[in-house]
Amino acid sequence: MIYLTRKCEFSASHYYYNPELSEEENRKLFGKCANRNGHGHNYIVEVTVRGEVDPMTGFLIDLKDLKEIMNREVMDTLDHRHLNREIAEFAGQNPTTENIAVYVWRRLETRLARHPSESKADSPETPVARLHRVRVYESHDLFVDFYGEA
Amino acid sequence: MIYLTRKCEFSASHYYYNPELSEEENRKLFGKCANRNGHGHNYIVEVTVRGEVDPMTGFLIDLKDLKEIMNREVMDTLDHRHLNREIAEFAGQNPTTENIAVYVWRRLETRLARHPSESKADSPETPVARLHRVRVYESHDLFVDFYGEA
Amino acid sequence: MIYLTRKCEFSASHYYYNPELSEEENRKLFGKCANRNGHGHNYIVEVTVRGEVDPMTGFLIDLKDLKEIMNREVMDTLDHRHLNREIAEFAGQNPTTENIAVYVWRRLETRLARHPSESKADSPETPVARLHRVRVYESHDLFVDFYGEA
Amino acid sequence: MIYLTRKCEFSASHYYYNPELSEEENRKLFGKCANRNGHGHNYIVEVTVRGEVDPMTGFLIDLKDLKEIMNREVMDTLDHRHLNREIAEFAGQNPTTENIAVYVWRRLETRLARHPSESKADSPETPVARLHRVRVYESHDLFVDFYGEA
Amino acid sequence: MIYLTRKCEFSASHYYYNPELSEEENRKLFGKCANRNGHGHNYIVEVTVRGEVDPMTGFLIDLKDLKEIMNREVMDTLDHRHLNREIAEFAGQNPTTENIAVYVWRRLETRLARHPSESKADSPETPVARLHRVRVYESHDLFVDFYGEA
Amino acid sequence: MIYLTRKCEFSASHYYYNPELSEEENRKLFGKCANRNGHGHNYIVEVTVRGEVDPMTGFLIDLKDLKEIMNREVMDTLDHRHLNREIAEFAGQNPTTENIAVYVWRRLETRLARHPSESKADSPETPVARLHRVRVYESHDLFVDFYGEA
Repeated sequence: MIYLTRKCEFSASHYYYNPELSEEENRKLFGKCANRNGHGHNYIVEVTVRGEVDPMTGFLIDLKDLKEIMNREVMDTLDHRHLNREIAEFAGQNPTTENIAVYVWRRLETRLARHPSESKADSPETPVARLHRVRVYESHDLFVDFYGEA
Repeated sequence: MIYLTRKCEFSASHYYYNPELSEEENRKLFGKCANRNGHGHNYIVEVTVRGEVDPMTGFLIDLKDLKEIMNREVMDTLDHRHLNREIAEFAGQNPTTENIAVYVWRRLETRLARHPSESKADSPETPVARLHRVRVYESHDLFVDFYGEA
Repeated sequence: MIYLTRKCEFSASHYYYNPELSEEENRKLFGKCANRNGHGHNYIVEVTVRGEVDPMTGFLIDLKDLKEIMNREVMDTLDHRHLNREIAEFAGQNPTTENIAVYVWRRLETRLARHPSESKADSPETPVARLHRVRVYESHDLFVDFYGEA
Repeated sequence: MIYLTRKCEFSASHYYYNPELSEEENRKLFGKCANRNGHGHNYIVEVTVRGEVDPMTGFLIDLKDLKEIMNREVMDTLDHRHLNREIAEFAGQNPTTENIAVYVWRRLETRLARHPSESKADSPETPVARLHRVRVYESHDLFVDFYGEA
Repeated sequence: MIYLTRKCEFSASHYYYNPELSEEENRKLFGKCANRNGHGHNYIVEVTVRGEVDPMTGFLIDLKDLKEIMNREVMDTLDHRHLNREIAEFAGQNPTTENIAVYVWRRLETRLARHPSESKADSPETPVARLHRVRVYESHDLFVDFYGEA
Repeated sequence: MIYLTRKCEFSASHYYYNPELSEEENRKLFGKCANRNGHGHNYIVEVTVRGEVDPMTGFLIDLKDLKEIMNREVMDTLDHRHLNREIAEFAGQNPTTENIAVYVWRRLETRLARHPSESKADSPETPVARLHRVRVYESHDLFVDFYGEA
């Protein structure tokens, strides 16, 4: 069993606000983050997959495939976006680092399960890399890890 | 002559848009950055001052003073802000890394000139630290330096 | 289950010396670290907590609370200290990176268990974040992890 | 149980090529990496050992011993080498980050098991540090973890 | 006057060898670097341009243009190459960090002078960014700066 | 003209205290740094030399020579030391980052002037690397530059 991790980075805006609470409660709970004009971060996402090494290539996963999946599922949906206003999943919950990690996991989970079996259907015994962990850094001194539900 | 540099970091939102141009021209010039919902960054600011070392302390500048000036002039005005919407200087010009560096320079320039003479008026020969350079990182692979006008 | 990690940094002096051994044995075992004038490091501490995300906030733990606990238990006790001379726990054992990690764990463990239940006693079902790991870097190329006694 | 990690860095050349495949298949699978003149990296290796802390020293492992083992087994064999041409293990398989991690694990595994018992044979109850994980970074945004066969 | 710096990273192989010297002299002068199988690095290149900010955009230079120039002149020529064997300029001189910095400067110098005047010939007063410095890191602890001939 | 920079890192203890001032004045001026048990840092030193590239080697300076000079003049004198108690130059002045940079400059200045002319006396036209800058980081967010007396 081998674990491989690839990083990417996106820039986005967000704010924290719960409409069921008063303005004052929001300000108390979320401080400067409650400013609904939004502020932003350079988020770093680390995606870890695990599985067996393919003896033909020496790879756990084709890095071109992993890069393409991460570009499509993470970069194209989140980069240069205002998370509260443009991402449906964050309409009803705050785009905290915790929730972003879960969001990224859910987008990647099925893609990583489906992808290799589709493109390499003729070699059914091909080792399949599975999503192991999503780590999201909001800044150099704060990050969150998610290993999937359960 | 000694040069001392201190870093700080703030998080902010911005977008790039010139109202004198058409929507299409803006999209062509600024790409994803033209999204007026805004996106954001963790900006790192490096402030460099230069001067003589005070033999009594071994300091070029009292770090508590420098920290306080940077907190007041940089952090308190820019951190957790939407630069286009909340900073007057960026109402008429894009908050690019270039313009942010000039903005930070202008806020610090007079504070660093005035500060030591005020607080230590009784020791007129006290070495005075002067602003030398402002560096602003928008991301780990892009930064701007400004050394002042002229 | 979500894991959240926050970093902080402190500066301290230490040396390695076992009074039950001879001067020569100490010098042989600990090399330059046996110099009892002490030398120092910028220690980086990563504190990881784990638990459920609170749907009201999107947080695993209130970051202001975590910061306050880390400031009180780690920064206030260790920053700008000589570990051998000023920290009672290191009177009888060397302040190695290993022992510092255990020291930080012990100080944080009960604080993190007690804190949320006290301050939010009125919402007994509030998810509680528990200490998961303490990582201490002595330098960029050496670090220690501790997950608690077991 | 404590985990201690030490990093080292080596520079090496490699390329990816499977002689059982056609030139075109190699180019398609490995892209620019199939260039048999080779290209290179600054590899960072993190070696993690785990065990009990020795109360006499406060150490999990003598860092001089760990450094010496890593120098002999990692640096002396891999630094400034062309991995495909000079390392026997990579004659029949690609020196991918995955395979390098397994290679480093195998070289360290027995050395870390044998070493302490040999040099401290007179204190049989000395805690013994065991290899826990090998992490290899090929670049700042790609790394592999290996925890040993199981 | 504003200075803007953008980084990119390439991987390449090289060795140091002077055919006019004996094998022994080469080994003495260049040590492990004289191994003609080659070894490699992840080189980081920082390109600094200077000029005036365009008030219409707030940019010193269009980052898409700068990125395209750096991709064409640096990445496409050097990435995943064996510098001694594949780059004509390094047939007669060692591809040291010093010489790589001069090589990058020469490739960028005319492109940065020509580029803006060509593509924006209709606005002759457009501020023109000029190459100011090329910095090349061979590793995290070694880098070279070149400011051009003169 | 080429500039080459090499980094090294040392660990040391220090405190700030001026015996001509009262205990209270020291505490006010130097805060936690006035604790005479000392605290410590991992200092990073960047040494920059400048000169012409030797066409025979492609080097500005032989890196083995530079490393040896930095080891002898910086590491051997400062690493694992208590700067106030063990370094003569800091008996009468505080070992601030500013003063450490000047100290390192003075130790390196003559060594870098003398060294190449001695060892390569038979090739009087050999390019000579001269010390250009000493940078000292006390922490990741604070550093000092010194370019020599003028």
